Amino acid sequence: MTDYIESLQVLAEQFARLKGVGRKSAMRMAFSVLELDEEQARAFADAIMDAKTSIHKCPICGNLTDKDVCYVCSDLARDTSVICVVEDVKALMSIEKVREYKGVYHVLHGAISPVNGITPDKLTIKELMERVGENDVKEVIVATNPTQDGEVTAMYISKYLKPIGVKVTRLAYGIPVGSDLEYADEVTLGRAIAGRRDV
Amino acid sequence: MTDYIESLQVLAEQFARLKGVGRKSAMRMAFSVLELDEEQARAFADAIMDAKTSIHKCPICGNLTDKDVCYVCSDLARDTSVICVVEDVKALMSIEKVREYKGVYHVLHGAISPVNGITPDKLTIKELMERVGENDVKEVIVATNPTQDGEVTAMYISKYLKPIGVKVTRLAYGIPVGSDLEYADEVTLGRAIAGRRDV
Repeated sequence: MTDYIESLQVLAEQFARLKGVGRKSAMRMAFSVLELDEEQARAFADAIMDAKTSIHKCPICGNLTDKDVCYVCSDLARDTSVICVVEDVKALMSIEKVREYKGVYHVLHGAISPVNGITPDKLTIKELMERVGENDVKEVIVATNPTQDGEVTAMYISKYLKPIGVKVTRLAYGIPVGSDLEYADEVTLGRAIAGRRDV
Repeated sequence: MTDYIESLQVLAEQFARLKGVGRKSAMRMAFSVLELDEEQARAFADAIMDAKTSIHKCPICGNLTDKDVCYVCSDLARDTSVICVVEDVKALMSIEKVREYKGVYHVLHGAISPVNGITPDKLTIKELMERVGENDVKEVIVATNPTQDGEVTAMYISKYLKPIGVKVTRLAYGIPVGSDLEYADEVTLGRAIAGRRDV
């Protein structure tokens, strides 16, 4: 009889629609909404519509923005000769947090995954090629995820860019800083050994 | 620079306001909203306001309802001489799922917890006493959570009800101590109802 209050059920279904939210969590969140006062609930509902209507993709790099062009592309201090290619905006935000990268980005909005029907033409790879062709790009850092799909995507991109004479690099593989060798998986450790460098 | 898009940040904060949602989950959910189409986002926003405006507490038992009186209290087939006291509506829903209990409920909306400033007068204990006094109640099943606060609440209630001559019972310990009724599986909960004992 959990579904006796229709509007509660509907709300839980809306939460369950979000990525990574299960049925139990969705119901708990729906209950949480009932504990908000009317004004807070209104603020929540408005925030959803505000975000949805104000945020769109940057026409240059595919990053999310509420301006004409995203804050990275509109920053004249950024080095446009280096493009970091990421799968999604969350990866872009992770790299930005490091505050070490001064180049610009290109968001693919996914990774090549034939199993899931994601072919190269479904990503923004064509737009990347155009950017590289039109601008004086010296290096493309392919920062796709260290997964099979990410690797395939990286290989695909480098295959097209290398002949043009652009330097294509990939993030270093290795053991995470602050971790314990004992818990590193064999593949990672193998890569870390292969990629060892002089101290 | 994660907070450069204000409306996304505002939305994430709204999600983070919900119980049990951390900052990272909130941001992930905010991103998820951006992936909805306009119509879906509108449905989500509407669902929040619909639930908030249509759902209120049942004036008899404190259960949530979108009617004048909740579906349990308005069901003439339910045995009003047995009241099951629960901490919250989630616990009520868990017991309803077993389809074994035919009495009515009383929702306390919390448990006595002096540490958190929740004294008996902050709960609906007074209303429970009135219900027991006014109606021909034979048994009160105290189904508060098997936690310290739940036990204290059960003791408090039984102390007041026993002198009136009402049978006060507690769910059998089939439910794991320290857990939450919401997560109890139906078989365990069914056994606990069948094996309830005098306090």
